Amino acid sequence: MSQIKNVFNFNAGPAMLPKEVMEIAKEEFLNYQNSGMSIMEMSHRGDHFQDILDKAELNLRKLLDISNDYEIAFFPGGATLHFSSIPQNFLLENESGAYFLTGVWAKKAKEEATKLGFKTEILYDGKDSNYTHIPNVFDESLLKNHKYIYITSNNTIYGSRFIQFPRASNIPLIADMTSDLLSRKINVNDFGFIFAGAQKNIGPSGLTVGIIRKDLLEFPKKPIPVLLDYKVYFKNKSLYNTPPTYSIYIAGLVFEWCIKMGGIEKLEAINEKKAQLLYDFIDNSGFYNAPVEKNARSTMNVVFRLNDVKLEKVFNEEALKNNLVGLPGHRDAGGLRASIYNAMPIEGVENLIMFMIHFQENNK
Amino acid sequence: MSQIKNVFNFNAGPAMLPKEVMEIAKEEFLNYQNSGMSIMEMSHRGDHFQDILDKAELNLRKLLDISNDYEIAFFPGGATLHFSSIPQNFLLENESGAYFLTGVWAKKAKEEATKLGFKTEILYDGKDSNYTHIPNVFDESLLKNHKYIYITSNNTIYGSRFIQFPRASNIPLIADMTSDLLSRKINVNDFGFIFAGAQKNIGPSGLTVGIIRKDLLEFPKKPIPVLLDYKVYFKNKSLYNTPPTYSIYIAGLVFEWCIKMGGIEKLEAINEKKAQLLYDFIDNSGFYNAPVEKNARSTMNVVFRLNDVKLEKVFNEEALKNNLVGLPGHRDAGGLRASIYNAMPIEGVENLIMFMIHFQENNK
Repeated sequence: MSQIKNVFNFNAGPAMLPKEVMEIAKEEFLNYQNSGMSIMEMSHRGDHFQDILDKAELNLRKLLDISNDYEIAFFPGGATLHFSSIPQNFLLENESGAYFLTGVWAKKAKEEATKLGFKTEILYDGKDSNYTHIPNVFDESLLKNHKYIYITSNNTIYGSRFIQFPRASNIPLIADMTSDLLSRKINVNDFGFIFAGAQKNIGPSGLTVGIIRKDLLEFPKKPIPVLLDYKVYFKNKSLYNTPPTYSIYIAGLVFEWCIKMGGIEKLEAINEKKAQLLYDFIDNSGFYNAPVEKNARSTMNVVFRLNDVKLEKVFNEEALKNNLVGLPGHRDAGGLRASIYNAMPIEGVENLIMFMIHFQENNK
Repeated sequence: MSQIKNVFNFNAGPAMLPKEVMEIAKEEFLNYQNSGMSIMEMSHRGDHFQDILDKAELNLRKLLDISNDYEIAFFPGGATLHFSSIPQNFLLENESGAYFLTGVWAKKAKEEATKLGFKTEILYDGKDSNYTHIPNVFDESLLKNHKYIYITSNNTIYGSRFIQFPRASNIPLIADMTSDLLSRKINVNDFGFIFAGAQKNIGPSGLTVGIIRKDLLEFPKKPIPVLLDYKVYFKNKSLYNTPPTYSIYIAGLVFEWCIKMGGIEKLEAINEKKAQLLYDFIDNSGFYNAPVEKNARSTMNVVFRLNDVKLEKVFNEEALKNNLVGLPGHRDAGGLRASIYNAMPIEGVENLIMFMIHFQENNK
């Protein structure tokens, strides 16, 4: 068998998955636990899959220290569906949700609530800073009339994140953690509802993980589409209808890998180190620059520019020749972006920096 | 490497996939087209995935002879989501949809429309026949005030199907073809909207294929959740948000396999033969019986009972020992069921019949 070429994949998602996970999945692909079948072919009501689902939930609880006050579910599809589900589950006609617009996804979530006829308030809009700033303080008295506070914890597109999360007594905090769940320690008890599309730190696209405080399932609401109803979904333990079984299997392997790596604190330390290496190099280069304010920089998505933006296209072409893929920024933001999720080894960041040094030498 | 045991998987879905497809997928699992990456890890906006998506659409068009009057999309999640989407996309306040309740799924689709506040009419209810009958004639004049006619073309749970489909001039026919799309020749032009959860004849669970007549995308509607809006979904060619990329890849391989097998007519002939073998054996056995009327029997899901129903539990235990898995009926229907989708080779049916003969000998 020929050697697989050594590519470092900086795609924002679907993204690199841990090598060890992919190797186990390949090994078990045709014949799961000597069943003669692939997991992909097994009933979602059978023992094998139930075991996978139970273990995945248990390991996620362990990793994030999730108490029994919270339910966990695995949803089909991406995080965008929840932009619709959230107001429909948590708001009645004259109630409102409060949104921090720190990036494209938060803005879409807010616009969806408005489109569906719900009241919203914008507590912060990052547009003026071109999304390079994240608010660290806010006035809690603004929130008293709202049913929830909504944030995107990490902004995949602009490469910014909340270092500390807004809080208000008695108002549930809802967080889209698609691009940073499992990358850093959080206190789940600070949140009412957390959701995360899998295709960054968790598994294949087409899967979203949800963690909800049980009492929020009892919010009164109008009739809504059955699969957007959190009560239906959580109470049926992800099995109201056929779930994306294979994607849940991969997510389960990723959770096991996270535990083997030493858990979230260990992964967070590695993530901090990878990001710091890259940001420090960029800041000191005099050739590249990172637009996001230092106290708001994401450890998952390192957004950067070349001082001479005209060189960015060539930069990316050369990077590809060096097996560094997925570096162009999001089409809404332009520039460059290195997504360095849990699965990206430090060698990947080192290779990128070495390439950047050479590119700078050759183009200064 | 040890030999994989030779299991025949009669699960109703997730179900057996073609062996050749699974072997290609395993071979390419870690390293797609020498990219150094798995497809699972690749951007949905990159060339590799776009190529997979384009080919999957093209091959599906070829297989079902789908004209340019129709759009194709790959949705995340299962068919149930569409029970909500359909009335929201096609009905306004005083408009109604007409439903044939030939099984559990059609009933759920109708109930969902009602729950969401839409008007519906039941044109047929199979409850009285315990869903063993399918209507072959109906009065077209009943339909004049409806915006659509809704059917489930094949009933996975009860093992029945429409041999010919209801038609009414100018009223679009909507069909949930989850358990028989690709199993028999259909004329797509007879339908307004076809949808099918993948986990029977198409691919992994967590994916639904949709085929819509373009003019139906222009139906006026109220604002609805963005991912339930067919116009958004179809116009963005399955890429409004991150699709379930890996599942689409597997579906694409299955479409290629269907073409290699000789196309739908060839597959249909094999399916007819497999089903006929099994039904004939059951009908003549004097030990087993098939409850569905002969002119309504599914070729995909062969539902049967033992004349002595008390023996059914032992039957299934013995079957498992003989590597025949997934034979218990759906929890709503009981009894036994052999799901024999495209991927089930005739040897699987022959093995099942041989087992049934021996079981009968030993228990008569």
